[in-house]
Amino acid sequence: MDKDPQTSSCREPVAGAGAFTVKEAGPVSWTPSRCSCCVSGYVEPLVLIQLAEQVDPATKQWIMKVMAAPESLGGAGLLAHPGEDVDGDVIVVSAPRCTLLRATEELGLCKLDKDGNMSAFSNQDTENFPSSENMQEFLTLAEKQFIVKHQLETMRAKKDQRIPGLTQAKGVLRSRQGILQKLERAGVIRQVFPLHDQKRLTALGKEWYSKKSLWGQPLDSIQDYFGGPVAFYFSFLDFYTWALVPPAVLGVLLLMLLPPGAASGDQEIQKMVVAGGVPDEEDSPSVSAHMVQAVFSMLWSTIFMELWKRRSSSLSYHWGTFNLTERFAEPRPGFRGELGVNPITGRLEPLFPEWKRQLRMGLGSVPVVGLFLGLVVLGMVGFYHGEAMVKNLHQSSGTLLTTVLLYLPSMLHILYTNMLSTLYQRVALSLTEWENHREESSFQNHHTTKVLVFTFFNCFAVLFHIAFFKQDLPLLRKRLSSLLIVNQLVNQCSEVMIPFIVDRFYNSQDRDLMEDDPEADSLRAQISVPAFPGLFSEYIELLVQFGYLSLFSCIYPLTALLLLINNITEIRGDAYKICRLFRKPFSPPVSNMGVWQAAFEVLGFVSVISNCWLLLLSPRVKLFSLEAGISGIHLLILAILVEHVLILVKMILAFMIPDEPDWVRIKREQIEFNSMQALSQQKN
Amino acid sequence: MDKDPQTSSCREPVAGAGAFTVKEAGPVSWTPSRCSCCVSGYVEPLVLIQLAEQVDPATKQWIMKVMAAPESLGGAGLLAHPGEDVDGDVIVVSAPRCTLLRATEELGLCKLDKDGNMSAFSNQDTENFPSSENMQEFLTLAEKQFIVKHQLETMRAKKDQRIPGLTQAKGVLRSRQGILQKLERAGVIRQVFPLHDQKRLTALGKEWYSKKSLWGQPLDSIQDYFGGPVAFYFSFLDFYTWALVPPAVLGVLLLMLLPPGAASGDQEIQKMVVAGGVPDEEDSPSVSAHMVQAVFSMLWSTIFMELWKRRSSSLSYHWGTFNLTERFAEPRPGFRGELGVNPITGRLEPLFPEWKRQLRMGLGSVPVVGLFLGLVVLGMVGFYHGEAMVKNLHQSSGTLLTTVLLYLPSMLHILYTNMLSTLYQRVALSLTEWENHREESSFQNHHTTKVLVFTFFNCFAVLFHIAFFKQDLPLLRKRLSSLLIVNQLVNQCSEVMIPFIVDRFYNSQDRDLMEDDPEADSLRAQISVPAFPGLFSEYIELLVQFGYLSLFSCIYPLTALLLLINNITEIRGDAYKICRLFRKPFSPPVSNMGVWQAAFEVLGFVSVISNCWLLLLSPRVKLFSLEAGISGIHLLILAILVEHVLILVKMILAFMIPDEPDWVRIKREQIEFNSMQALSQQKN
Repeated sequence: MDKDPQTSSCREPVAGAGAFTVKEAGPVSWTPSRCSCCVSGYVEPLVLIQLAEQVDPATKQWIMKVMAAPESLGGAGLLAHPGEDVDGDVIVVSAPRCTLLRATEELGLCKLDKDGNMSAFSNQDTENFPSSENMQEFLTLAEKQFIVKHQLETMRAKKDQRIPGLTQAKGVLRSRQGILQKLERAGVIRQVFPLHDQKRLTALGKEWYSKKSLWGQPLDSIQDYFGGPVAFYFSFLDFYTWALVPPAVLGVLLLMLLPPGAASGDQEIQKMVVAGGVPDEEDSPSVSAHMVQAVFSMLWSTIFMELWKRRSSSLSYHWGTFNLTERFAEPRPGFRGELGVNPITGRLEPLFPEWKRQLRMGLGSVPVVGLFLGLVVLGMVGFYHGEAMVKNLHQSSGTLLTTVLLYLPSMLHILYTNMLSTLYQRVALSLTEWENHREESSFQNHHTTKVLVFTFFNCFAVLFHIAFFKQDLPLLRKRLSSLLIVNQLVNQCSEVMIPFIVDRFYNSQDRDLMEDDPEADSLRAQISVPAFPGLFSEYIELLVQFGYLSLFSCIYPLTALLLLINNITEIRGDAYKICRLFRKPFSPPVSNMGVWQAAFEVLGFVSVISNCWLLLLSPRVKLFSLEAGISGIHLLILAILVEHVLILVKMILAFMIPDEPDWVRIKREQIEFNSMQALSQQKN
Repeated sequence: MDKDPQTSSCREPVAGAGAFTVKEAGPVSWTPSRCSCCVSGYVEPLVLIQLAEQVDPATKQWIMKVMAAPESLGGAGLLAHPGEDVDGDVIVVSAPRCTLLRATEELGLCKLDKDGNMSAFSNQDTENFPSSENMQEFLTLAEKQFIVKHQLETMRAKKDQRIPGLTQAKGVLRSRQGILQKLERAGVIRQVFPLHDQKRLTALGKEWYSKKSLWGQPLDSIQDYFGGPVAFYFSFLDFYTWALVPPAVLGVLLLMLLPPGAASGDQEIQKMVVAGGVPDEEDSPSVSAHMVQAVFSMLWSTIFMELWKRRSSSLSYHWGTFNLTERFAEPRPGFRGELGVNPITGRLEPLFPEWKRQLRMGLGSVPVVGLFLGLVVLGMVGFYHGEAMVKNLHQSSGTLLTTVLLYLPSMLHILYTNMLSTLYQRVALSLTEWENHREESSFQNHHTTKVLVFTFFNCFAVLFHIAFFKQDLPLLRKRLSSLLIVNQLVNQCSEVMIPFIVDRFYNSQDRDLMEDDPEADSLRAQISVPAFPGLFSEYIELLVQFGYLSLFSCIYPLTALLLLINNITEIRGDAYKICRLFRKPFSPPVSNMGVWQAAFEVLGFVSVISNCWLLLLSPRVKLFSLEAGISGIHLLILAILVEHVLILVKMILAFMIPDEPDWVRIKREQIEFNSMQALSQQKN
């Protein structure tokens, strides 16, 4: 009974097909399991490998053999299935129970033990983890698929050999070379991606975006199906949307309390200030309204981020990813270094000293990124310069040619920006590769940071220019509101509507074609769907709107309300998109949002500076100081003082609110204490 | 052989006395050891307990019995000796091998294992730690004495009982009550302090302060004899003194490169600036000299602190204190809370929720400390106000009475400051007690922080007032140099000379009196020596001079040189003081400087702000901007920009330099990896 738990509890195979039930060994069937505990009547297809079209059947045979070989022989310990027929260009991959359990321990995933605590899974102690009897329940779909990918990526040749069916030049495999990487480079494997489970996907979609209620998302189901990064993104989006309610309410209140026309009346006041006149008494409360908004926004962003950290750490506990052991695992496939013994784990693997990486980052990456940021600024300066020149030219000699010339600077600037951006993408990737990070998460974080800094700079350079150099608040307000309204509309359309239309009208034709083997068809259909582009653009969108809100909201109080409305639709849109329009992504287990969290926090600090500056520029404050007889230089000193105090308050607040709830801290310390105890007893 | 290692290797007993060699059990001898492995021919006296003069012999007998009882019976597992005679008012305490080994594991001390790595000592695996055979070598004197204190403090009554020889009211001991705390409160125990080992002390002193060479201190011997906190203080002082060399050289260079008289010529330039004139060309380089000094000082303080952190972490590894387990140990004696099961360790102990502590700190301590700081400012404002008033009065009607009145504000201010300071000391202690910290180190850190903030504020309030409000650079320079020269001289005198004189002329009379039993005399002599006042005043002195250097040095380039000279004598003075003039202090094992490190770092950040401001005020910069045609407000904006960029650079630098050397990181991760492995195998 215990030996074959999957048969009893696994889902029924898809009706009529049965392609992935285990039949007697024939050419079109799963490679046999090696140990008795992994034998199961139905094997769940997890990952699809698409081969090049003209692959020699001998090569395909060899690949399947290697994948099915145990890890000790340089294989992956997986189960392989040749798809519809032996000569086809796909291999379907699954994982037997033993491999899954071993990998779970290796990754440091935590699972519910019999006391109801999450503890690091130990393969030698499966009795402590009752759910490990049933693999459907024990590991999430995303975890299983990630494990398959991890197993495939860590396949290494044990000795120099030749891959059958390939030419002499392409087919040589050196000892310790990564087999998957080699096959990809040789063009044998076109892509590897996880398979959707249509039944569960439909159920998830129903729960998620077709629901009538506006609030709440099935976060656990998302984590289960799509894995950590996607689940953290949606949790954050959810949390953030809720957090927008207080500033939205405040914004509306302030707008209502302001005297009518005050919001748009700044220009007049400015004129009065310049002329030395004093406006009506009734306008004065807006100085304090401005102040309230700025201070509130500062406090809000701090508390929001601190509370999110707490939420994030409880989610990470709940999802069993708070104790990941990536740094003790094998390095990522792209990692290069001299072969040596890792002093920490004692394993043979490539080594690369930390100080070299630091040096490369400090002397290579940082200056290059700085250079690109400089080029952005240069482009902007050139644009303003060119525009002024052309305008002058047009005013002095207004011919048709100069009218056309009026558009030239913008066009050149757009062209320049696009080229720069494309170039930067490549440079950022190569720089990060060159930095040679050992862990995948560290690679991702450094790559994201590079792209992030550039994108952010691109988005905000113009706004900062208007705010700090032109010091033109009305223009800033106009620009901000148009960005908020137009940009969001365009984004939502381009993100959801266009793929939706393509999906409906273009892809559905393909789908209807073949209905004789639904399971095989489902595989084919998934190959044709575009790959998931990653969460970068989603996060950057959030970051930019968080930027609008925290940096400039004090001059446009409705920002939060607009963002709130936008995000409620954004959640549904993103959910629909990820479920229906793209291939399923691989998701490594993660314990937080990674570098995005830091990005939001940095923005919080920048926002204090920006808000203080905007307050200073505000004509009402100028007016107020004029009335109170404070000179410009004293006002500036006051603003600096306020800025420093606010930053101090922010730091104290961030320090005072613990980053994890007490109960998570206790659980974490329990584990530390237990492992300390285990260490001292082990030597017994 | 293995069972009795101490006899073979322990030091010879002090000549002629032999009071602490183990004789046949008589009234004046050590309580017998309980297990055979602890039996030793000579027992090292570690700690002295001084009782009240009129203590009932029955009480003394009872205390010795309890101390010698095993821990399982509520005792301390120690060895006790009644001093010269059974009725005397002292108890000499030592610790048997078993107790020492057990406590070493409990404290999480790391010791050299047989592979040459420092690893957490495990009592069940003594074979892995060859030096554990010889207790003289295995534990340092400071560690052994701390363990005795720790054992004494954790003695708890197992059941309600009466202490013999005490009155009914005083002698009742409740179950789980701390026995030592009870005896201290009942007035039975007057003091508990560790004993000096005169022979080793003389050797240490010779190596330390009597040496001819100016550089280098025997840090390992200091750690061995005086323990972690003292050793960290002297390591830091040493490191800091070395680090002063570059700024001292730069200061001298700048002074030499400046045109003669330039340093004192600012007033004239200021006059010229006010008059709109332009001084000679030759004075202009000093703007860049100022700039160089300010930027250098900022970079220097960052790099200095980062390198110190690295040094500190290697020292901590070297001294085996990088893996302390204080948070898993019993709470400190003063800790109060509801009795419950600690969720982490599963032990029965008082519990106090973290959020309550946070709340008390946030709503209690922070406002009260803020109030006191406000009172300091109020006092200063009152002083300036009063002085101006009295001056006016004197000028308008110059009688003898008004001449006397001229001194009144200063006197009142000094009185006020002293009273405030005394009051604050008490309030800070009670507040920290009220915050109810679980760990002793946490208690110490919070207490130190409170006193530190106040003292620092007191020291720098006047300088900041001169720099930022009066904006009077010449006065600031005068004040700073007088503080540097006069204060240091006065400090050195009062710290060393006076106790030295007292020691020589006053105490030596006592010492000569009795020479018949040198060992007992040595005990008597140590009782009469004053207790060590702690390192607070030493550290605050360093912090204040670091403040002078990093906050204001750009206006007085010789600061670093003066400090360098001062510190070279300071090291010797402090060393002499701690060796000869005070009783030996108890030293808990520590892994770093604690809160002082943070204090130095915070000062580094404040220094950026202060330097930017001083640069801005500098008449030369004003002159420069006048020449370049930059308006005051633009200059201010420029200064803010520079400040923000410098802070950013500082943060990036701090982030780029790893806090611990690579080899320490590897050792630490090794331990983590091993305990993870142990945990997963233990459940096997």
